[in-house]
This record gives sequence, structure tokens and C-alpha cells, in this order.
Amino acid sequence: MARVSQEHLDARRRQILVGAAHCFARNGFHGTSMQDVLKEVGLSAGAVYRYFAGKEELIAAIADEAFSSIRRAFEEAAELIPPPTPDVLLGRVLRGVFEGQVYGMERRTCAALIVQVWAETMRNDRLAKTLDDGFIGMREAWATLVEAYRAAGLMHSDVPADDVARTLIATAQGFLAQEALFGGAEPHVLENGLRGLMSMGPQKIS
Amino acid sequence: MARVSQEHLDARRRQILVGAAHCFARNGFHGTSMQDVLKEVGLSAGAVYRYFAGKEELIAAIADEAFSSIRRAFEEAAELIPPPTPDVLLGRVLRGVFEGQVYGMERRTCAALIVQVWAETMRNDRLAKTLDDGFIGMREAWATLVEAYRAAGLMHSDVPADDVARTLIATAQGFLAQEALFGGAEPHVLENGLRGLMSMGPQKIS
Repeated sequence: MARVSQEHLDARRRQILVGAAHCFARNGFHGTSMQDVLKEVGLSAGAVYRYFAGKEELIAAIADEAFSSIRRAFEEAAELIPPPTPDVLLGRVLRGVFEGQVYGMERRTCAALIVQVWAETMRNDRLAKTLDDGFIGMREAWATLVEAYRAAGLMHSDVPADDVARTLIATAQGFLAQEALFGGAEPHVLENGLRGLMSMGPQKIS
Repeated sequence: MARVSQEHLDARRRQILVGAAHCFARNGFHGTSMQDVLKEVGLSAGAVYRYFAGKEELIAAIADEAFSSIRRAFEEAAELIPPPTPDVLLGRVLRGVFEGQVYGMERRTCAALIVQVWAETMRNDRLAKTLDDGFIGMREAWATLVEAYRAAGLMHSDVPADDVARTLIATAQGFLAQEALFGGAEPHVLENGLRGLMSMGPQKIS
């Protein structure tokens, strides 16, 4: 048997994940069979099972990579000094996610896949662990930023930083759900919306 | 055959929907069979099929009712004068949804059902129509409120009202996703988070 380079193995693995991601986004996790994935990627069962034992492993690998991509986009943006305000930062991260950073998928396909992963996560302990870890990491990163906003005099309320973190993450998640369900979720809509909200203060409650 | 009162028919219909909602929340739409629903509600096939021809009709009826419940909670809150700020209003609506207004379901079960409905909506035209209509109605209601905030001098940015509306809806949707995925999404977290964001202005960009 000919020796196979690591690049070749990586490319093959990626080809399988890209095909599986498109199948799941289109027909859902339960509406997709391994046979559908084989057909989508144009490979034999032997070639695919060498990398992934089944659908469970495929979706776990996809969720891992999608999360890493979102986290990377977030970390790159958050490293800027001074830290960009939430409207700028969330707009930048969403643009990254929507512009093909996740398996070269188009915006709506990518959003649909994320909602499919959420639905599957509620019945799949491995996915639940992946998403839990990702959520904790995001909350910590956002909470650090919120403290930086406060230190810079940009935020005038003394609410817990983690509450603001969870609200900003919710905004991004909800925007992905809107794109999956209705389409047309352009990042500038979220940027404008956050600007509108941020212009409602300072509040008297803090 | 004995005559059956309308109340009896309504109660029976509701009993079926409550049971089906719990099945879908627990095992997903595709992981639930009509047999599972019959077992959950303790009725014969004949009794259930008299009301619903199949799973599709069940989930459409559930989505209709859940949406009406959310819209009702929103409209009640929005009728207050002066209009409550987004933190107060979203907190109030979420409390309504989470406190058993939707089929007496507990918070996490209810959130799980909503995410299941989203996943199914991408492959189901009837559900898509129901959610589309609901989304348009919500956007209009929120946009009206945003104009009221602006008229009252509470919002200082001139971003499109619809963009703020979509951002606030996204925040609520994302918060429901967090409850479904991770639990612990207490309404006061969202209230605090929105207060923090609202305290970041006024911005110079408007």
C-alpha cells in the first residue's frame, strides 16, 4: 500500500466533514444517514469509516471545529486595544462565521447547522460537553471584556459582568437562530441594534 | 353515542397537546412516534386521531399556541404606560414563558421544545409560515416601542427601529437557547445584562 501524506489525510478528513456538515444542515441530524454522507462526499464506506465510526463522531467533530472557529474570531477581535465595543466585536465575529470560516458554508447553511447541533445536543452527552466547555470559555472571555469596558469608563452600571456576558452571547445565538429560520440576518443589523440599546443609558438603576 | 360537550373536546385536545409537547421536548420531533404520544397521554389511537392526523399537525398546533402565549405576554407588558424599558419588558415576558404559561411545562422543558421547533421549522413549510408570521408581528410590536423610547428621549441613536427590534428578539431567542442547552437562564440575568448594555451610551456614532 502506498504511503499517504499527513496533508492528504487531513484534506480527506476535512472533505468528509464538509460533506457531512452540508447534509446535517440540509436534512437535520436524524434525517441524514451515513449513506447520505458517503453519497455527498463521493467516497466509499471504507474510506469514510477509517476516519469516523458514525454520525455521532461526525457531528461532534463538526461542533468542535465550528466552536473553535467562532472562538478564534472572537479572540482575534478581543485582542485589539482598546477593546472594541460589543456592537463592533459581535459584528466582526458574525461576519467571520458567516463568511465561510466554517467549512466554507454559506450564511444560512451555517446557521441551520448550528440550530441542528443545538437540537441534537439535548440528547447527546458528548455534544453537551463540547458546548458546555465552549459556553464557559465564551462567558469568561466576555466577562473580562466587560470589566475592561467598566475600567475604561464605557459601562456605567455595576451589574455582574457574567450577566452582561451571557446576554451578549444570547444576542449572537438568537441572531444565528434568526438567520436559520428567516434568513436576511446581516451583521450590520445586529451592530445597529446594539448601538440603539447602548444609547439608552446611562440608567439610574446602577 | 353520547353527546360530548365543547369543554370536554377542548380539554381532550389540550391533554393531547400537553403530552405531545412533553414528548417532543424530551426526545425531539424525529425521536417521537405517534405511539409515544398515545402512551404519554394514555388515550387510544382513535381518540387522538380524531383531533390530529399526525405529528405534523401536533407540532404545528403546539407552535401556534406557544407563539400566541409569548405574544400575549408581550402585548400585556407593552400596553403599560410609560412603556417599560427592554430589560423590564423582556424579563417580564420570559418570566411568563418560563412560569408554565406554555402547557404547564417547566422552564427547561419549554426551552427545549422551542429549540426542537426551530430545528423542525427548517424542513417544514407549515411551521415556517407560523414562525414567519410570529416574527413579523414581534418585529412590528418592538419597532413601535423603539419609536416610543425615542419619542420619550430614552434612546439617543437614530439606528433603524427594526434593527433594534430584531436585536431584542435575538436576545430573547438566544436566552431560550441557553436555557435549553445549559439551564440556569434566570430572567434576572437577562435584565441585568441589558441594563449593563444600556449603560454603555450615549454613543457618538448616531
